[in-house]
Amino acid sequence: MDLNLQTYTQHFDNHLYLESGRILESYDITYETYGTINEEKSNVIVVCHALTGSHHAAGIYEDERKSGWWDGLIGSHKAIDTDKYFVICTNVIGSCFGSTGPISVRKPHDELYRYKFPVITIKDMVKAQRILFDRLDIHRVEAIIGGSMGGMQALTFSVLYPNFAKKIIALATTHATQPWAIAFNKVASEAILKDPDFKQGYYDPEILKESGLTGMAIGRMAGHISFLSHESMSEKFGREYKRTDGLYELFGKFQVESYLEYNGYNFTKWFDPLTYLYITKAINLYDLARGFDSLKDALKKVTAQVHLLSFSNDLLFRDFEMKKIDDTLNEIGYKKHSYINVQSDYGHDAFLVELDKFQHHIKDALDA
Amino acid sequence: MDLNLQTYTQHFDNHLYLESGRILESYDITYETYGTINEEKSNVIVVCHALTGSHHAAGIYEDERKSGWWDGLIGSHKAIDTDKYFVICTNVIGSCFGSTGPISVRKPHDELYRYKFPVITIKDMVKAQRILFDRLDIHRVEAIIGGSMGGMQALTFSVLYPNFAKKIIALATTHATQPWAIAFNKVASEAILKDPDFKQGYYDPEILKESGLTGMAIGRMAGHISFLSHESMSEKFGREYKRTDGLYELFGKFQVESYLEYNGYNFTKWFDPLTYLYITKAINLYDLARGFDSLKDALKKVTAQVHLLSFSNDLLFRDFEMKKIDDTLNEIGYKKHSYINVQSDYGHDAFLVELDKFQHHIKDALDA
Repeated sequence: MDLNLQTYTQHFDNHLYLESGRILESYDITYETYGTINEEKSNVIVVCHALTGSHHAAGIYEDERKSGWWDGLIGSHKAIDTDKYFVICTNVIGSCFGSTGPISVRKPHDELYRYKFPVITIKDMVKAQRILFDRLDIHRVEAIIGGSMGGMQALTFSVLYPNFAKKIIALATTHATQPWAIAFNKVASEAILKDPDFKQGYYDPEILKESGLTGMAIGRMAGHISFLSHESMSEKFGREYKRTDGLYELFGKFQVESYLEYNGYNFTKWFDPLTYLYITKAINLYDLARGFDSLKDALKKVTAQVHLLSFSNDLLFRDFEMKKIDDTLNEIGYKKHSYINVQSDYGHDAFLVELDKFQHHIKDALDA
Repeated sequence: MDLNLQTYTQHFDNHLYLESGRILESYDITYETYGTINEEKSNVIVVCHALTGSHHAAGIYEDERKSGWWDGLIGSHKAIDTDKYFVICTNVIGSCFGSTGPISVRKPHDELYRYKFPVITIKDMVKAQRILFDRLDIHRVEAIIGGSMGGMQALTFSVLYPNFAKKIIALATTHATQPWAIAFNKVASEAILKDPDFKQGYYDPEILKESGLTGMAIGRMAGHISFLSHESMSEKFGREYKRTDGLYELFGKFQVESYLEYNGYNFTKWFDPLTYLYITKAINLYDLARGFDSLKDALKKVTAQVHLLSFSNDLLFRDFEMKKIDDTLNEIGYKKHSYINVQSDYGHDAFLVELDKFQHHIKDALDA
């Protein structure tokens, strides 16, 4: 069957009360759907995106060459089968692909939020989605699935709205962001903030997208290191040199350097730097146990099936971080959970790249 | 006995023929010695420094608070016992602590080299040291010891001048720099080059040291990630926040962020950015096998005892990179070598920080 890709934006006039105590007066949420909802609205699957992702998880737009970020996973006869399920993916609050974020226009001032945008947490992202689903008259879903920051949202759903989803499938994520990940985000935020073209947040987003913010490119290069692994880099690039006759030139480049340059600078053409600061802040702040006495106490809320998939060589969110969730669920005597450490040398990005290694686990969990 | 710290600078008027085919017309080498040389000159130990190190490996200068970078290891009754050994540590060619490098004055032009400085390799650093030792009438030494880039020099000595040292002790290093390490260096070099205050290499070194090059600070933050480990960061910083009331502020800081800021910006006060580009280039280019058919062929040159110490959680130069040297020596039937993988969660910097975990191995190797 056809993917039936639909893109919508909904506007909300009610305040969104944030974890920080601040409010977002009014806001938009952009989302995409695939497949067809059944009459009982009982075939809904929510997919949550990562740091730089968007609502565009599957399919391909007419004017573009690249398909959605989990296109290999979502579609007819794929692991998340759109012949059977109605899939929703929303752009998170704070992002820059249609939902309200720091470079959205702030009503009634008619200027961009910039630093007036409040700090957003993963809980806030989840709460905003929940309000959207309410409006769509969806009060219980089959599953919530996400990797990396998407996994943080899925797990937060399970604690914040225990009855909302039957199943939670979280990949390549953690119970609380560790200093190693915060450190990589720090390199990026510092590089963005100190770039003179960033103009202390008062840049023109259109111009900056044209020119490309060097600081964000540099920060993204550091990010790309954290998404890969020693092994996958050696495999991908070895010590290959771009031009062998440039070996002894100061600016001669190894292949890995060209890769980082290309991906770093290309990134500045499609992502916004203020948004990068806000979303990495949300990731840094993520801690399932916040507001509870302990992780144990937080997980006592859970009633959904919880399926955890870590990747053995994920250096950003280490396998033992996800195992800790599994161990804690065992500790409190919770039965409905599974944990698989997918063997992979790739690194964190395995959840986007090595679908063959884990898509059957997602299918199994959905079929369970 | 007294450490007998002495600092010297020697000038060389003969050309240094470099691996690139270029020449360094004349140059200085600054070095430091500890202990006393015996009559037969048979008690010499060479210590080699890492990326940002200097000849100042031990002892403390009158006007400073910090002692040399391996002070815990070098001294009276220490693992490298200066009551017994005469220790020499030279500042490598290309560095900025007295030996000739890119911000040295280029004779007879009386201007700084800057980009006119030729690319230097680890082999070149080793060759320049050998020429210095010749002048000092030292033709054979007891041992050459170094960690990280210092270990690269020690290993290069063993292949380039097989009869020069009786023993080679290399720590936290590799047979060839892998793309993971090159990638971290890339973040730093890009951040330096793109900083407007770097002025495309035509900055005033004195002014830059005062003001601190932001780009280099950012690059150094990335470096600090690579020197530590996920585990040591979690241990050191956890999710501690600098001010808890700043939790929901965009610029509120986690402890790990403050640590990176402090070390990143402080670094710019004592290290030069052009030098950082040249030395990281030397590290990137390092490959023991270059000029040979294979690593095996290179190691066939070795006649010294080779003692290899890796650190189990070194993420910059992984333990299996050093094990490969050990395996290759076994393959060619070489007997005089040992390999120990020191168990440590600290990361790469363990070779500077966790002396207690390995100093007895150095003592054992020297006593052997």
